[in-house]
Amino acid sequence: MSNSYGTLFRITTFGESHGAAVGVIVDGCPAGLEISMEEIQHALDRRRPGQSDITTPRKEEDKVTVLSGIFEGKTTGTPIAMVVNNKDQHSHDYSHIQHAFRPSHADYTYTAKYGNRDYRGGGRSSARETVARVAAGALAAKLLQHHGISVQSYVSQVGSVKLRKPYNKLDLSQIDSNKVRCPDGKIAARMIGVVEEARDSLDTIGGVVSCVIKGVPAGLGEPVFDKLHAELGKAMLSINAVKGFEYGSGFEGVKLRGSEHNDQFYTDEEGHIRTRTNNSGGIQGGISNGQDIYFNVAFKPVATILQPQTTINDAGEEITLKGKGRHDPCVLPRAVPIVDAMAALVIADFLLRQKVNKV
Amino acid sequence: MSNSYGTLFRITTFGESHGAAVGVIVDGCPAGLEISMEEIQHALDRRRPGQSDITTPRKEEDKVTVLSGIFEGKTTGTPIAMVVNNKDQHSHDYSHIQHAFRPSHADYTYTAKYGNRDYRGGGRSSARETVARVAAGALAAKLLQHHGISVQSYVSQVGSVKLRKPYNKLDLSQIDSNKVRCPDGKIAARMIGVVEEARDSLDTIGGVVSCVIKGVPAGLGEPVFDKLHAELGKAMLSINAVKGFEYGSGFEGVKLRGSEHNDQFYTDEEGHIRTRTNNSGGIQGGISNGQDIYFNVAFKPVATILQPQTTINDAGEEITLKGKGRHDPCVLPRAVPIVDAMAALVIADFLLRQKVNKV
Amino acid sequence: MSNSYGTLFRITTFGESHGAAVGVIVDGCPAGLEISMEEIQHALDRRRPGQSDITTPRKEEDKVTVLSGIFEGKTTGTPIAMVVNNKDQHSHDYSHIQHAFRPSHADYTYTAKYGNRDYRGGGRSSARETVARVAAGALAAKLLQHHGISVQSYVSQVGSVKLRKPYNKLDLSQIDSNKVRCPDGKIAARMIGVVEEARDSLDTIGGVVSCVIKGVPAGLGEPVFDKLHAELGKAMLSINAVKGFEYGSGFEGVKLRGSEHNDQFYTDEEGHIRTRTNNSGGIQGGISNGQDIYFNVAFKPVATILQPQTTINDAGEEITLKGKGRHDPCVLPRAVPIVDAMAALVIADFLLRQKVNKV
Amino acid sequence: MSNSYGTLFRITTFGESHGAAVGVIVDGCPAGLEISMEEIQHALDRRRPGQSDITTPRKEEDKVTVLSGIFEGKTTGTPIAMVVNNKDQHSHDYSHIQHAFRPSHADYTYTAKYGNRDYRGGGRSSARETVARVAAGALAAKLLQHHGISVQSYVSQVGSVKLRKPYNKLDLSQIDSNKVRCPDGKIAARMIGVVEEARDSLDTIGGVVSCVIKGVPAGLGEPVFDKLHAELGKAMLSINAVKGFEYGSGFEGVKLRGSEHNDQFYTDEEGHIRTRTNNSGGIQGGISNGQDIYFNVAFKPVATILQPQTTINDAGEEITLKGKGRHDPCVLPRAVPIVDAMAALVIADFLLRQKVNKV
Repeated sequence: MSNSYGTLFRITTFGESHGAAVGVIVDGCPAGLEISMEEIQHALDRRRPGQSDITTPRKEEDKVTVLSGIFEGKTTGTPIAMVVNNKDQHSHDYSHIQHAFRPSHADYTYTAKYGNRDYRGGGRSSARETVARVAAGALAAKLLQHHGISVQSYVSQVGSVKLRKPYNKLDLSQIDSNKVRCPDGKIAARMIGVVEEARDSLDTIGGVVSCVIKGVPAGLGEPVFDKLHAELGKAMLSINAVKGFEYGSGFEGVKLRGSEHNDQFYTDEEGHIRTRTNNSGGIQGGISNGQDIYFNVAFKPVATILQPQTTINDAGEEITLKGKGRHDPCVLPRAVPIVDAMAALVIADFLLRQKVNKV
Repeated sequence: MSNSYGTLFRITTFGESHGAAVGVIVDGCPAGLEISMEEIQHALDRRRPGQSDITTPRKEEDKVTVLSGIFEGKTTGTPIAMVVNNKDQHSHDYSHIQHAFRPSHADYTYTAKYGNRDYRGGGRSSARETVARVAAGALAAKLLQHHGISVQSYVSQVGSVKLRKPYNKLDLSQIDSNKVRCPDGKIAARMIGVVEEARDSLDTIGGVVSCVIKGVPAGLGEPVFDKLHAELGKAMLSINAVKGFEYGSGFEGVKLRGSEHNDQFYTDEEGHIRTRTNNSGGIQGGISNGQDIYFNVAFKPVATILQPQTTINDAGEEITLKGKGRHDPCVLPRAVPIVDAMAALVIADFLLRQKVNKV
Repeated sequence: MSNSYGTLFRITTFGESHGAAVGVIVDGCPAGLEISMEEIQHALDRRRPGQSDITTPRKEEDKVTVLSGIFEGKTTGTPIAMVVNNKDQHSHDYSHIQHAFRPSHADYTYTAKYGNRDYRGGGRSSARETVARVAAGALAAKLLQHHGISVQSYVSQVGSVKLRKPYNKLDLSQIDSNKVRCPDGKIAARMIGVVEEARDSLDTIGGVVSCVIKGVPAGLGEPVFDKLHAELGKAMLSINAVKGFEYGSGFEGVKLRGSEHNDQFYTDEEGHIRTRTNNSGGIQGGISNGQDIYFNVAFKPVATILQPQTTINDAGEEITLKGKGRHDPCVLPRAVPIVDAMAALVIADFLLRQKVNKV
Repeated sequence: MSNSYGTLFRITTFGESHGAAVGVIVDGCPAGLEISMEEIQHALDRRRPGQSDITTPRKEEDKVTVLSGIFEGKTTGTPIAMVVNNKDQHSHDYSHIQHAFRPSHADYTYTAKYGNRDYRGGGRSSARETVARVAAGALAAKLLQHHGISVQSYVSQVGSVKLRKPYNKLDLSQIDSNKVRCPDGKIAARMIGVVEEARDSLDTIGGVVSCVIKGVPAGLGEPVFDKLHAELGKAMLSINAVKGFEYGSGFEGVKLRGSEHNDQFYTDEEGHIRTRTNNSGGIQGGISNGQDIYFNVAFKPVATILQPQTTINDAGEEITLKGKGRHDPCVLPRAVPIVDAMAALVIADFLLRQKVNKV
């Protein structure tokens, strides 16, 4: 029972990988926001399978339909329901996984939890569920745009190939200029090589998505439990295959001394309060300080591989299983719009929450 | 407005560093749980300042009083209120920080958020707030004990000194055997050296706490947003000074291929379903799989240092500030019981939530 | 932002009267519950317009589609999305109400609240929204049936015609035996007369729905705020046109003395604890005591009348307005399945909540 | 698990009748609200026992202590904890009720729910719990005052003595001018007679509290489930001994036709949108329309009577029980500040919620 996310800008998602549809209800999007179907569809298109030869070759159109809450081009304050129909949901053969517990998949844990499961293509545990997040995220991003806030994610690591330049040394307009969504062309080429190698070995590879949020005013985040970075962390960790989250100086920062790590305040020429360094990642005491927010999200290698693996079935018997179908050798490029969406949802929610903190 | 945490086992905390008291209401602790004051006090004593020469020398007794919800030694199902009075809250002089925005503290962000702030000793942003979490965590831990679940945290890194042995190669009974709370004596000695060096330089140092949870049955965690590791992540990131969270193979695991990373299922001699490796960290698809859960939490160096620092005041003017008083050169040893508490609260909540998932 | 209801058995609804569709996501329905499409459709058919000549003659099929969460005839524990498409949503002419604030409708208040509104047929404020509640209520009722609990509502008053017999003197199997849904045939005939008279005068009339819930075990309801009757009250008051709620002895009971009102406990021949009277309406201290739960719900006369009325438009100018179209002269008969649905949702939620109250 | 109330202005209460203390945490009160201890204490004094010879003669001082969240006379945005210590909690003898299930009390239902209970003076089910509500309500009322909103409750019925004048024909400044808190002196005298008669017969009597809220702007209330009147209803029904709620025309209004019941809009001389009648009770479609809000709350006679009653003990055996101690023959006069408090909490919450509904 946790298919909702957000306190005031709140989404509730539904749908199984091979059921009739996936979708979302957005409750709490403020009235009067102008939004077009194209804007929502554009976000889904960035997530769509079959975009390039390093993602799954499945062709899914992922066309969104809005059922409520938008009238004459504007949100009305009532819940916005969006649905994306699944294609060909009856055409597949799942007999090979119906009784299998695939390694590092959720087959076993869903069965342990609920007693039964929709075994078709992973059911609810499939990353297809993120379609709903991306559709909702497009609405959130529109609200952020209205407030001058941008969210930009990119692939910063694939396997051991790591982009070492910090975000502020990169040209973020180049994120979509290559199929791996790394804004540095040279590193991108090496990353693509790693993905192709994994794909050609019938294997998969993990990586890291980095995200930068600019234009967030000071004051967002709700201590003590809903600290801004705590919600960002939860939102990211709720995405399929994510294994870690760090913001600002992160895990590396633990090696520093306080005197090195502290961000010194100053007043800039325009009278704005700023910090000379940004080890805080734009967040202090769980509240935004007006500097850029940045963080990293670790994704494990996709569990479905096209090689035979030993595992057990639901009778506890050892079996050999081999992945079928068309799968991503590396989720990272398609994870970028999902990280964007979840980050936008978190910031939109905190924007609304901050509206009630002062008399 | 986020001083509550948990869905069914839910805590609400209050209190400023130098106000009258800090405390917590636990709502949702099941009726009939036997608990003694000593058990709660013991948890607080592990967190208490002044335990050793590498923590703050402040002497705070932190004696807990239970105001409701426990009757004749058992919980009654009604809310359990616990209060710890603050000592000497009127005896301090805060004139040096009343108008200052200390570097990497929450002075500026609280002011931006709320318009005013309780500037005495950091007010609500002080780590003193965690007293309430530890008291509540003791109740949660008691519930876990009833279900055969243990939570054990330890310091695995201080500065650049890192304990490389995985948790299952350590003797976790030794955690409290030294003042830095690292179960490996040799590494502990080196860590202590690093802390002392920082302390003697009037500086501070960061580190990592690792946590292991054993005995969790398969089935805990609520997809899709309240995945078990997503809530653990949020809970950890909500602790003061935390900058990162990873579980299972974490950030290192992204370098692996799927064929290396996947955890193969097998049935052990007693008929239990197990995995041969545990890169999943005991969690698959956001749900526990019955294996050990383990994760790492990164803590930045404490922001308060006893050296002069340049910063600004609330008029935006540059000032020089020097930390006063008695502060921790390294929060790690005292962070251990806080990580324990938050982990226990998360698991207790999911234990209750799982009770309603099947007809 | 309040299109969700329930704590553990939780529904989120969407849809405008003349938008594309209305629907609901049910999150938290336990896994393993057997349910058929026919059972859900049956509940909707009881609410459907055009059932008789005393309800609106609009013909809406209200066919439900389940998009997720039910697999092979059973719930899976994942969210259950249900959608009912609206018919002919583009065929109407709303120019007469686009700028009008209809008396005792929500046109003015929605405009004041959100700045804009979907004026087609009342938009979100239309009672068409209750389609979603009834679909979700069918699932809840199925869960109650599994626990031996029944919910039965009936019309007990129309205008000044009041059924004075208490519920336990009625044959509740006769509720659907007449078109006004009053189980007493004689009173039903008089009620029908009153509705026809109102209809023929181009007017509308109010009334009361009574509800009886049998088989609820002792222990449901969550003090202190979510008392069983407090949630029943909220659920009923959230239905369109409801103006009052009372349970047990209700408003009449205030005239009694404690010695008359108190329900004396006794142990019956089978050893069950019972009360000799039931002024408590089956609820004491906000918790069910195992006796029948019963309550009354007051519905005002429908605001849409086919007579000319004076009101203002959104420029504040006085206008004359006359209802068009096909409307109910009395909502009571069609309100019965809605009261059933909301009552079932409340009890289902408390059934789940009670599962976690004891160690 | 429901000791919290409110979405954004949220209270969490604790405490048993004869435990150490009762209290509340208010989370979400906006920062910068000026409030003095006297204002909070004043509200508690109106609820305090021993005010007159028609309430319980128990002498409880009910002195409130604020533990956090208020600094230099203003709220800081952090949680406000307030505690009222119980007096003499160890001096009573409860042996006569330890094993008894008192008629129409919550002894049996708490035992059924939780397995054990704090039997001292009703424990958590005692109306002493409302101390916490009144303290929190004082903060809410202060916020309302800041927005020009007033809440005024009064006793409108005791037994069969009913004040028939509507609220707008009364001088509400006279509410506290007599000990029964009815603003009409003649009716008040008759009510007092009824209470004295009940008291002298060692019995109790019920009644009705009416409440008027003035100055609420149009737009408060959150469809579809958190309609303004639905939350008011829930809040009132959550008060001990309440059996019914109606607003505007209420149960009487069901007898009217739509043409009689509809409230016609007009624009007044100052250009404000108003209605000529107010059967809607200031709420249309669940949202305030700017007119006065008014409602009635039915209270049953107090269950504790000083006469012998037949009931059973926890072994199911018949026993005779006689109330001891000092109890209210009629809760109505002391219920007035509790209705005030809950109404203020509801409106304060909706004021905050409305802040986020438009871009």
